[in-house]
Amino acid sequence: MADAPLYQRLALIGIGLIGSSIARAAKKHGLVGEIVCADASAAVRAKALELGIVAAAHADAAAAANGADLVIVCTPLGTYPAIAEAIAGAVQPGATVSDVGSCKAGVFRDLGNALPKSVHFIPGHPVAGTENSGPESGFAELFDNKWFILTPAADVDAAALEKLKTFWGRMGSKVELMDAQHHDLVLAITSHVPHLIAYNIVATADDLQTVTKSEVIKYSAGGFRDFTRIAASDPTMWRDVFLNNKDAVLEMLGRFNEDLAALQRAIRWGDGDALFNLFTRTRAIRRQIIDAGQEVSTPDFGRHGKPPST
Amino acid sequence: MADAPLYQRLALIGIGLIGSSIARAAKKHGLVGEIVCADASAAVRAKALELGIVAAAHADAAAAANGADLVIVCTPLGTYPAIAEAIAGAVQPGATVSDVGSCKAGVFRDLGNALPKSVHFIPGHPVAGTENSGPESGFAELFDNKWFILTPAADVDAAALEKLKTFWGRMGSKVELMDAQHHDLVLAITSHVPHLIAYNIVATADDLQTVTKSEVIKYSAGGFRDFTRIAASDPTMWRDVFLNNKDAVLEMLGRFNEDLAALQRAIRWGDGDALFNLFTRTRAIRRQIIDAGQEVSTPDFGRHGKPPST
Repeated sequence: MADAPLYQRLALIGIGLIGSSIARAAKKHGLVGEIVCADASAAVRAKALELGIVAAAHADAAAAANGADLVIVCTPLGTYPAIAEAIAGAVQPGATVSDVGSCKAGVFRDLGNALPKSVHFIPGHPVAGTENSGPESGFAELFDNKWFILTPAADVDAAALEKLKTFWGRMGSKVELMDAQHHDLVLAITSHVPHLIAYNIVATADDLQTVTKSEVIKYSAGGFRDFTRIAASDPTMWRDVFLNNKDAVLEMLGRFNEDLAALQRAIRWGDGDALFNLFTRTRAIRRQIIDAGQEVSTPDFGRHGKPPST
Repeated sequence: MADAPLYQRLALIGIGLIGSSIARAAKKHGLVGEIVCADASAAVRAKALELGIVAAAHADAAAAANGADLVIVCTPLGTYPAIAEAIAGAVQPGATVSDVGSCKAGVFRDLGNALPKSVHFIPGHPVAGTENSGPESGFAELFDNKWFILTPAADVDAAALEKLKTFWGRMGSKVELMDAQHHDLVLAITSHVPHLIAYNIVATADDLQTVTKSEVIKYSAGGFRDFTRIAASDPTMWRDVFLNNKDAVLEMLGRFNEDLAALQRAIRWGDGDALFNLFTRTRAIRRQIIDAGQEVSTPDFGRHGKPPST
């Protein structure tokens, strides 16, 4: 006998890469009775209906949230205050409201505090994604074996939390609980600063006069192209990440800059030992990431499309 | 009828990732009569013989170069002066000596100038590689559809150049000619600075106290792990790259730092428009790299191991 759905009605506010992947995965795993969505874009709503991943697509977030026992906000962080205002009067008592934003400390202020006390607000963050955007880019396996971090407040309802943990576990994710402030510090170094650096070097390369853009593109296989993947991520989402996690990003960026200044000095003064020692240390980290199952060990990300022959 | 070999005897000085890949590809495409190698490491020599990719493996570079009509130096740039001294008396008149080093301006000084005038010195650089090292990591397809840049001097022998171009073309590469100084500037931005930045952020993350190393590894899928691939590249090779291309790297790094300071300021002052505009511009570059056939368009480098379902 198939398990009964965990939630009767899931409302996804925003149906882009993440929202549409949640819809696909929740349907695949039989976790919800019905899925509806809201999206500000008429083209995106039409696409979501065409893909058959939602039963209804509303322009108005309140219309989608109305009658749902699980609401997940899947829009850029900058939209949260307006969404909070829109859905506060529509969410039914006892419902759970969650999100998938990349910064967690600010969501209590921007989303949770505006909701009635009868609603369980439990912020979340899937450490998963691709560089593509839009409902056509989503897929049901996006969360498989990926971490999902929940950052509940201390006074969270235990039963509502347990149910949401079960939901994400059955979506394929490995679920962790974390303090919201600590989450933002961890993600600043594992995600936000790497994205910033990638955006920055791609822009630097784009601005050169001595080396043409076509040369940058032609010879990008030398290393540069690895950065372009994450520098192709959604601009609105990432603008909001940096505006929302300013302190942690600036702190980590300060450390990055100090370390880079030391490397720059080693190059200028020809200090080969300093370079060699640092380059040896960093090699070990990748091994640990592969051993932890967070990366594939295929050379060159398996871009060659086949295993090396001998 | 199979084509006759282009060269009778290929001597590879150094039989690591690149040297062993050349051996495999040259054999696969029937480009040489015989392949011998030299390597300073007894373990590497034994491995190369065990893999059956060379007919003989010498400790002494001169012994390998002796009697070869094509010698390709495949060792870190810092070894070039000693190798030049070792092989200068052994290379036969009319032979071609080339290399695969990542910086080209310095190789005339460190390698070419020590060779007799009867030898054709033609520097080269395959824009190909993986993060792995050693003869066991090489494979015959490494150069397929990759750029190979030759940086000959103005007075190069036309026939010798044409023959080496043919050799690399039949190895699977797309061959380009470039001025050595310009090569070093192009590679500084497309390869050397990206590697430096990757090494640096991995080291910064490794040094944190507020975020544990296990957290960095656990949540690396948020972007960080993309940097670890190139930060796992061979430390000796990369030390020598930075010591050999100091001026171009410091110039490009200066521009990178200026741009990063502007981004940092935009974050500090909450200038969302500046962030959004830059993030939009960088997205277009990746599209161009994919269109140019220099990257796969599979989301997330195809790490999911299967195409997205709908």
